[in-house]
Amino acid sequence: MTTHPLNPIDVTWTQVESRDTPMHVAGLMPFALPADAPPDFLRDLVADLRSAKEFMPPWNYCLRGPGLAHPRPAWVEQETLDLEYHVRHSALPKPGGERELGQLVARLHSQPMDLTRPPWEFHLIEGLEGGRFAIYLKLHHSLIDGISGVRLLTRCMSDDYQKSLTLPPFWSPSLEKQVRKERPAPTPTTMDGVMKTLVDAVGSQVRSVPQLVRSFASMLTPGGTDPAMKLPFDAPRSVLNGRIGGQRRVATQLFDLNRLKALAKAGNCTLNDVVVSICGGALRRFLLDEGKLPAKSLTAGIPVSVRPADDEGTGTQVTFIISTLGTDIEDPRERLEGIAASTRAAKAHFRALPREAIMQYTMMLMAPSILTMLTPIAGRIRPMFNVTVSNVPGATRPLYFRGARMEASYPISMIFHSIALNITCQSYADGLAFAFVGCRDSLPHLQNLAVYTADALNLLEAALKPAGAVKPAKGPARKAPRKKAAAARKAGTGKRRKGAAPGK
Amino acid sequence: MTTHPLNPIDVTWTQVESRDTPMHVAGLMPFALPADAPPDFLRDLVADLRSAKEFMPPWNYCLRGPGLAHPRPAWVEQETLDLEYHVRHSALPKPGGERELGQLVARLHSQPMDLTRPPWEFHLIEGLEGGRFAIYLKLHHSLIDGISGVRLLTRCMSDDYQKSLTLPPFWSPSLEKQVRKERPAPTPTTMDGVMKTLVDAVGSQVRSVPQLVRSFASMLTPGGTDPAMKLPFDAPRSVLNGRIGGQRRVATQLFDLNRLKALAKAGNCTLNDVVVSICGGALRRFLLDEGKLPAKSLTAGIPVSVRPADDEGTGTQVTFIISTLGTDIEDPRERLEGIAASTRAAKAHFRALPREAIMQYTMMLMAPSILTMLTPIAGRIRPMFNVTVSNVPGATRPLYFRGARMEASYPISMIFHSIALNITCQSYADGLAFAFVGCRDSLPHLQNLAVYTADALNLLEAALKPAGAVKPAKGPARKAPRKKAAAARKAGTGKRRKGAAPGK
Repeated sequence: MTTHPLNPIDVTWTQVESRDTPMHVAGLMPFALPADAPPDFLRDLVADLRSAKEFMPPWNYCLRGPGLAHPRPAWVEQETLDLEYHVRHSALPKPGGERELGQLVARLHSQPMDLTRPPWEFHLIEGLEGGRFAIYLKLHHSLIDGISGVRLLTRCMSDDYQKSLTLPPFWSPSLEKQVRKERPAPTPTTMDGVMKTLVDAVGSQVRSVPQLVRSFASMLTPGGTDPAMKLPFDAPRSVLNGRIGGQRRVATQLFDLNRLKALAKAGNCTLNDVVVSICGGALRRFLLDEGKLPAKSLTAGIPVSVRPADDEGTGTQVTFIISTLGTDIEDPRERLEGIAASTRAAKAHFRALPREAIMQYTMMLMAPSILTMLTPIAGRIRPMFNVTVSNVPGATRPLYFRGARMEASYPISMIFHSIALNITCQSYADGLAFAFVGCRDSLPHLQNLAVYTADALNLLEAALKPAGAVKPAKGPARKAPRKKAAAARKAGTGKRRKGAAPGK
Repeated sequence: MTTHPLNPIDVTWTQVESRDTPMHVAGLMPFALPADAPPDFLRDLVADLRSAKEFMPPWNYCLRGPGLAHPRPAWVEQETLDLEYHVRHSALPKPGGERELGQLVARLHSQPMDLTRPPWEFHLIEGLEGGRFAIYLKLHHSLIDGISGVRLLTRCMSDDYQKSLTLPPFWSPSLEKQVRKERPAPTPTTMDGVMKTLVDAVGSQVRSVPQLVRSFASMLTPGGTDPAMKLPFDAPRSVLNGRIGGQRRVATQLFDLNRLKALAKAGNCTLNDVVVSICGGALRRFLLDEGKLPAKSLTAGIPVSVRPADDEGTGTQVTFIISTLGTDIEDPRERLEGIAASTRAAKAHFRALPREAIMQYTMMLMAPSILTMLTPIAGRIRPMFNVTVSNVPGATRPLYFRGARMEASYPISMIFHSIALNITCQSYADGLAFAFVGCRDSLPHLQNLAVYTADALNLLEAALKPAGAVKPAKGPARKAPRKKAAAARKAGTGKRRKGAAPGK
């Protein structure tokens, strides 16, 4: 029975787990059926996925709580798995559109996991319009140690249609040799990535997160703080920053990556600036709807990768910056300029610092965040920033599993007390897939936010008129989309998606 | 803001609530679509059910924990409800058979409820074979105070097709006047009914269950015990009687009530004896399969209604008897005779007792059961009996909601540490619907139990050859069942239902 102690951060995810803050993440991946799929394609797929007899980590990891012999929680490798429990076949009610999918996924994402079993659930959802299906993979955050849940699946798919037909189940050891060769994964530019960097720096002597926080604090030298430090606690109070309940809402949006790139070029800024800018535009309208837009702009915590001043090679350092979201600015062009200036200044500041200083700065930012997560003051003090916006790079070529082409991968993340909204997007092939996850009670109209993001993109395009703007009729990352469904799903036509009417 | 303190028993349901023992019950009701149902029938129904603006108890009850001002938990009536949360539209994957329905319902029944909201969920499940649909209504046990969850809905349906077309949503106050006239409900012959009787007897001065147990104990006079008292603790240890996990399995079976009545007549016993007998036959084979049949017969705790010796009128008293399940007997006729003798003796014993003595006897039986439920010894001591078998009477005429005819109503109950299996059946029109709910880990092949119950019925019929035995081809409580589906669902053809293959 092989056991693996959890690292200090993963221990945290098990400690903060509660009815209101379940610490799981998920990936939602819609697929097009293979053209020649037999009627029983999905049933057979489920049966095959459940047929595995041997299992590879982390799929066979089961949590064992701390005891006298083992002061830290550990993973214990299981010999057998109850695959009928883990692999779940579900369906959408008709018409199987975005609305029905969003409601099912929100429900699934609201349910806490059974931590007495390996904490993952693989849902195969049939009945999406156009004969499509989706995978919703849910994993406890402690299980994945910085790997995104989506990546755990996508690295087991193939960009070769033929090769994809014979891939064994994701959790089968026989898959291991066939897994796509990936460049050694750089530390991901996510909040996790930031924390991972810090833990690596502090070293393995740290055995708990409170201890980790104390280590951070002791590394901070008085006077080592920077004027920019004021910015984090400068975030206005908003509906996004109170205590949260246990129920979630989930909304998604899919954009053509080339449209965003063209805007970045036209605006002389980064792709991430464009992402933050359309999120800011959408949030402005969203909060105006409810008469709750703070006078001061909301701020976003954005994980980024920077190169330290003392680095001669290609080494980068993951940290995170706090940028304005420009929610106080109505004009889309001005908002983008404000955001680009804000992120540029933050990065320039970092680039002028040696690695050690970046580390200290990051720790100082993270320490109070971790502490509030673990104590009852969470959600009751001034937020450090208002919303997390992460951008996770995914595969650049279309991927197949058993001949079914993946259309997008939406990374559905966690929210916390005092940060009731998470926006994470992931690039894949020609698309950039946004997932919005929020507290059901604080954000009753979350679906609108996804719609407004598309509108914000249109407005930004109208303002910047980028060269070679993509014609609105072309769908992202789809080769032969059914006309009507694709149009409804498509961002950028200005058309509201079903189920996203205001007031919903 | 109207508040209602919970009674001592309902307080218990909130206290024993845990990840492993969620204290909710449910009703599963399949329906035939009206012949003239438009394609959007179910979507429109969901929209209509969500359109209510005012709410009647208990649908608007929300639990408030005990505080300084209110030492007991209380229900607080809510002005508004998030009906999109409570009313859920789901679907089955194809082919939408018993197997798919059973898996979905088992998953839904495994999920703990969010007790920060009114603790009910109404699931409308589409995609059952033959264009049928189902309602799965889940309620926290504390909410219903002895009323069965199924009855909460069925009393809001009509036996008049036309009248059923205009019924408002179940939770709407405007429905109240239209609710079917029912005879004043007798105390139900369920475990709840037994407990309710006791609480009524002990009176309102009792404020907690431990206090209730002490009251019971103090009412017991030494020497007042009866030799029959030995029987309860005579139950053998079995796989049904350990600690349970949080995941459930659910299986269902539908029988023609007339077949069972004919057997009761032929066997010169009660309908309930026949029910217990086929459960015993099925359990015998089920435990033999796994090589875990105890030499001594399993026993069943059966809530019954008896008339005390000192009662001159028609007053009855709900108590419960412990009967053999005859799992040590292979011959079906001998098993039925054994069970009939056992229940007859128990009832005769009660009928010879005055009301007061019945009460004392019942309390003595219940007290340890309640205590073990509340303490960590649950599931670690010798069981009082092995399995609960309840029979709940339902409507005698077919019921309609919005023109859709209800086909059956399966009462899905709770299990506890040391009682990992609950069998509850409910009569309705011409059918008797059995629901089996068990611990997923202790009873991996629960589905077989449902199948074996049908086989046990066939064997009993072959042994007794009742007069006017119903032809196997006729389905219960269905007027124009689709041939194939009905045959597959039907009990008594000896045909195994899909998804019920041994080894599943």
